[in-house]
Amino acid sequence: MSAPHHPVDPDDHTGRESDRHARAVWSALAEPGDTVAGALVQACGATSSLAWVADAVESGRADWSRLEEAAGELDATLRRRVDAAVTRWTPRWRSLDPDRDRAAAARCGARLVVPGDAAWPNGLDDLGALAPFALWVRGGPPTATRSVAIVGARASTTYGERVTVDLAVELARQGWVVVSGGAYGIDAAAHRGALLGGGTTHVVLAGGVDRAYPVGNAPLLEEVVRAGGSLVSEVPPGSTPSRGRFLQRNRLIAAVSHATVVVEAAWRSGAASTAHHAARLLRPVGAVPGPVTSAASAGCHRLLRDGVAVCVTDAAEVAELAGAVGRDLAPAPAPGATRATDDLDPLARRVHDGLSRRTARDVEQVAARAGANVVEARAMLGLLELEGLARRVPAGWVVTDRHEERRGEKKRLS
Amino acid sequence: MSAPHHPVDPDDHTGRESDRHARAVWSALAEPGDTVAGALVQACGATSSLAWVADAVESGRADWSRLEEAAGELDATLRRRVDAAVTRWTPRWRSLDPDRDRAAAARCGARLVVPGDAAWPNGLDDLGALAPFALWVRGGPPTATRSVAIVGARASTTYGERVTVDLAVELARQGWVVVSGGAYGIDAAAHRGALLGGGTTHVVLAGGVDRAYPVGNAPLLEEVVRAGGSLVSEVPPGSTPSRGRFLQRNRLIAAVSHATVVVEAAWRSGAASTAHHAARLLRPVGAVPGPVTSAASAGCHRLLRDGVAVCVTDAAEVAELAGAVGRDLAPAPAPGATRATDDLDPLARRVHDGLSRRTARDVEQVAARAGANVVEARAMLGLLELEGLARRVPAGWVVTDRHEERRGEKKRLS
Repeated sequence: MSAPHHPVDPDDHTGRESDRHARAVWSALAEPGDTVAGALVQACGATSSLAWVADAVESGRADWSRLEEAAGELDATLRRRVDAAVTRWTPRWRSLDPDRDRAAAARCGARLVVPGDAAWPNGLDDLGALAPFALWVRGGPPTATRSVAIVGARASTTYGERVTVDLAVELARQGWVVVSGGAYGIDAAAHRGALLGGGTTHVVLAGGVDRAYPVGNAPLLEEVVRAGGSLVSEVPPGSTPSRGRFLQRNRLIAAVSHATVVVEAAWRSGAASTAHHAARLLRPVGAVPGPVTSAASAGCHRLLRDGVAVCVTDAAEVAELAGAVGRDLAPAPAPGATRATDDLDPLARRVHDGLSRRTARDVEQVAARAGANVVEARAMLGLLELEGLARRVPAGWVVTDRHEERRGEKKRLS
Repeated sequence: MSAPHHPVDPDDHTGRESDRHARAVWSALAEPGDTVAGALVQACGATSSLAWVADAVESGRADWSRLEEAAGELDATLRRRVDAAVTRWTPRWRSLDPDRDRAAAARCGARLVVPGDAAWPNGLDDLGALAPFALWVRGGPPTATRSVAIVGARASTTYGERVTVDLAVELARQGWVVVSGGAYGIDAAAHRGALLGGGTTHVVLAGGVDRAYPVGNAPLLEEVVRAGGSLVSEVPPGSTPSRGRFLQRNRLIAAVSHATVVVEAAWRSGAASTAHHAARLLRPVGAVPGPVTSAASAGCHRLLRDGVAVCVTDAAEVAELAGAVGRDLAPAPAPGATRATDDLDPLARRVHDGLSRRTARDVEQVAARAGANVVEARAMLGLLELEGLARRVPAGWVVTDRHEERRGEKKRLS
C-alpha cells in the first residue's frame, strides 16, 4: 500500500479503527465515483477529511485554512467544487446511521474491507481518486492472484451464454478467478461456468450485498458465497442499486480484474463501459466476436473495430490476454486439416502438382508442367518418393495415395 | 505508367506490338510469381529479355555481357539464379506455341491486356517483379475506380454466404466493383451478390479463361461476362489450374482491389493468403467475424487477432475501409435503443434515478437519493420537467412515462 492512498500507520490500531469507521461512513455519504470525496480522502485520510466535512456541515461554513494544511492551497475553482460537494452531502449527512449499516451487515454476514486489509484487492488503488472508500463483502476475500472479468449483455443469446460458460469453466479449471456483475445473461453464465469449473468467482454488485439483484439470481449468488467466492459492493447493505451505481460498479469490475472480456454486448451497453474502464486502467481488454447478423454482438465488434479490444475466441486466448507477458501463452492453433504437402518447399510442391495419380509422366513432362528444369524435377521427385508422395512406375512417375489429407502426422523434407 | 515497369515508348507502335507479343510468350513460359522472369522483364523490357532467353536456350550458354548492359552488373548469386531459371524455362520453351495460345484466346473471345493498355489494372504495378506479364481477359476491362475483393472459404456456411451476398449486393449498389476468385462458397456468393446488386464483378482465375473452374460455377462465370464483368488470368487459355497457381492468383486479387475482405476462412486458407498479399501491398484488409464455435470463421478471427485485418460487419464499414480517406465514411451507427435520458448530464441522470413513477418524493428526498444538494436537485428537476421526464404532483415529484425507451427522437438539455 503506497502512502498517498492509505495514509494510515498500520501499527496505529486506534488510527486504523477510526480509518475503518470513517471509510464506512464515507461509503454511505458519497455516491460511488464522487471524485471530490475521493480526492479529500486521498489528501487528508478518511478520518480527518470526514471530521472536516462534519464541521463544515454542522457549522454551515468551510474551514479552508484547516483543509489547506493537509491538502495544499485550493484555488477558487477547487473551493467551489468542494463547496458544492458539501452542499450535496448535507442532506444525506443528516440521515447517516453507521450503527444501522453495521447491524445490516452483521445480519447478512457481510464485513467491511478497507485499504490495508489483506482482503483489499490492490487493483482498486489504480483508480486513484475514483477508488472506493471501502468494500462491503459477503463470502471469501474478493482478491485473486489471477482474475479475469467476463461481462456482457443481459439480453444475451444462447450462443453467447454457451461461449461464456465454456470460457468460465475452462478458466476456472486453470485457476483463474472469474469476476462479473451478477446480472442476468452473460454475467450469470460467467459465474455459473466458474462454479461448474470448480473455481472461485466474485460478484460486484451495484446495490447492497444484502439484497440479491436481480432477485432471480439470488440462488446463484448464494451458491457463489458457498463455493468460497464473494459478493462485493462499495455501498452499505440496504442501499438500492440505481442506474448511476450500475455504471460506477463497472469501474470496480475492471479494476479488481487483470483483464476484461466482453462476450456479447449491444452497441451501447454497460459491458462496453466496463471494457472502456479496463482500457483506461491499462488492463487488457478482449471481445468475443459473434455473427454480424446478431445485434447482441454489435458492441463486441465495435470494441474490435475501435481497437479497444483484442479478438479472443477461447479460454487459452483469454489466459494469454490476462496473463503475465511470456506466461500463459495460447498454444499453437489446432492444426486443422494438415496436408502431407504443407511442408514441401514451393519447387517440390510445383513438381508434386505436376504429377497425376493415373497418368504416368516422365521427368521432362513433369519439369515442363512444374515450370522447373529437368535437374530440379528429378531431385524433387526423389524427395517426393522418399516422403511417400510420388512413385516410380514403368512409364514414369505418378502421385501416390498418401497425398490425401492426413492429420497431425508431419514429416519435414531435410 | 512509370518507366521502370513498362519500358516501351507508347508512340512506338512496332515496339508496342513486339512488347505485346513478348509478354504473351512470357505468360506461357514462366510460372506465375517467377521473380527472375519478372526482374528480367522489368530491367530489359519484355522483348529484349525474351530475345536474350531465346539466345541462351538455343545456344546453351548465357550471354552475361549482353544482359549486364541492360540490367547492370550481376554478382555470382544473381548469375546462378538466372542460370537456374534458364534451365527451368528450357523444357517449356520447346513446347511454346504462341499461335496456338492466340487461337485458343480467339475461340473463347479472350484478348490480351498488357501494361500501358487502358484495360490494364494499375494496381498490378505495385507487385513489382511479381507483377504478371500480361492478362488474358474475357469480358469487360478488369479495371475499376473503386473495387473491393471479397474472398473466403470454399467450405462456407449458410451464415457466411448470406453475409457475403448481402455485402456484395450493397457494395455493388453503391458502385463498388467486387473482385473474387470464382471458387465455390464465399467467392461465388460474392460474384452472385454483385450481380444481384446490378454491379460489375471480376473473376481472377488460376487457370485459363477458356475453362470455367470449378465446372459447377460455369453458368455463374458466363453471367459475370454477360453483365459486363470479366474473367481474368495471367496464364494463357488452355492452362490448367494447379495449387501453386491458385496461391499466386491470390496476389492478383489483392493487387487489383482497393481493399480485401475475408468473410469466412479456415485457420490456414487461400483467403488468408490473399489477405496477407493485400497487407503486404499496404491495401486495407477487413475480416468479417463469426461465431467462435464455427471453424469456418477461425481464419477471420486469426486475422483480427494478428492485427492483419480490421473487423468489418456491413457494407458501409467495408466501403469506409476501401474508400479514400475522409470519403466513404461509415455512417454513425444505427442508434439502437435510445433512451430519453441518454443525453442528460450525470447530475440530471442521478436526480432522474432518484424519482419513482408511483411514489411522490419532495426535493430533499430526491436530493438525498441522488447524492445531490437541494439546489442542484431543484434545478435538475426543473430541467427534467421541461424535457417531459419528471412531473410535479401535489406530494412532490414523480417520473413521467416519457422515461420509457424511444427511438431516434432526441432532444438536448440546453
